Amino acid sequence: MSKLTVDISTSLDGFVAGPNQTLDQPLGEGGEGLHKWAYKLASWRQSHGRSGGETGADSEIVDEALRSAGATVMGRRMFSGGAGAWEDDPNANGWWGDEPPFRHPVFVLTHHGREPITMQGGTTFTFVTAGIEAALEQARAAAGEKNVAVAGGGEAVQQYLKAGLVDELQLHVVPLLLGDGVRLFSGHLDSGQVELERIRVVDSPAVTHLKYRVVR
Amino acid sequence: MSKLTVDISTSLDGFVAGPNQTLDQPLGEGGEGLHKWAYKLASWRQSHGRSGGETGADSEIVDEALRSAGATVMGRRMFSGGAGAWEDDPNANGWWGDEPPFRHPVFVLTHHGREPITMQGGTTFTFVTAGIEAALEQARAAAGEKNVAVAGGGEAVQQYLKAGLVDELQLHVVPLLLGDGVRLFSGHLDSGQVELERIRVVDSPAVTHLKYRVVR
Repeated sequence: MSKLTVDISTSLDGFVAGPNQTLDQPLGEGGEGLHKWAYKLASWRQSHGRSGGETGADSEIVDEALRSAGATVMGRRMFSGGAGAWEDDPNANGWWGDEPPFRHPVFVLTHHGREPITMQGGTTFTFVTAGIEAALEQARAAAGEKNVAVAGGGEAVQQYLKAGLVDELQLHVVPLLLGDGVRLFSGHLDSGQVELERIRVVDSPAVTHLKYRVVR
Repeated sequence: MSKLTVDISTSLDGFVAGPNQTLDQPLGEGGEGLHKWAYKLASWRQSHGRSGGETGADSEIVDEALRSAGATVMGRRMFSGGAGAWEDDPNANGWWGDEPPFRHPVFVLTHHGREPITMQGGTTFTFVTAGIEAALEQARAAAGEKNVAVAGGGEAVQQYLKAGLVDELQLHVVPLLLGDGVRLFSGHLDSGQVELERIRVVDSPAVTHLKYRVVR
């Protein structure tokens, strides 16, 4: 069976977005700093329909994550950009533009059902109201042999970790302390502690990639 | 001037101790797992008056931290072992045994003054009620050319970070999710976000050492 992977950028103090998220500032105050390392990379630029960019270890790691995923699951806030946006306009198309970088089926966890959206470049957004396991089942069917990636935010990652469904966890640790915002690890684990096995550590001045397997 | 350094073991989800700390279990439930990587090392064993142990990169990193520090600052709970111990018996000598591993002056942040204690092997415990800057000043005087290390716990580290006094931050990241306990990064930073500069990343299967300089 394909793996469920988490791939997410975090500050050293464990925040995946800054405080005060809005539609104009979906990553919160200071949250842009968590993703700067990726913007300049060839693999990231290619997924966003742009040419050029830096090659090297960081770019290869992004490329690996992009290639290995056949479907993505994300939380509703990550889709809609900030907590307020969805409630204000439940039909908003999020902040991903006309051609989102996923280029495969994306399943959005939500309490408000709506029709799927087909974007340019191969991305579809399907809205799942039946919970995280139902979303994972649909994503696995869509991904085939490839992995299913949980893209975020922190709450969605936590839910899958708590349920013991995550196989691999890769954190892109950015040399920054945000002090406030959305935590990646915010809650108790139903299973008590979870043991991990280090797969790989790769570092550059801009970011350190820590990749672990969840031990069961 | 000598540097103020933080050197602390943490779970990947940011806990420096497990939940429910007591005198019998000063690292909380599951907290022992945060330090297992060190117990087997030659440098750690030597500082604890024991012979033998593994050499290699992990041992060298511990050795470097031990050699570079001329004085230590710690929070009251780290000295007394758990939240309850001190209140129950304000004259308790903590849980460090007769010959603590520091082998230099240690300054304990507390609200309850008491006379200094001289232990075997070069460790003294001095109790500072005048706040973190006073403790740092005394520790700097004691350390001479060497560094002052903040040994923990999470609250003491946070206070020095918030005040902008930390020069270097080394986290020993253990492949474990605790889900609950004492957080290393628990609060807002007065300065907003803090930029770090990566000094070095060293990893082994048991632990990943992330060392940063605080950018001012």
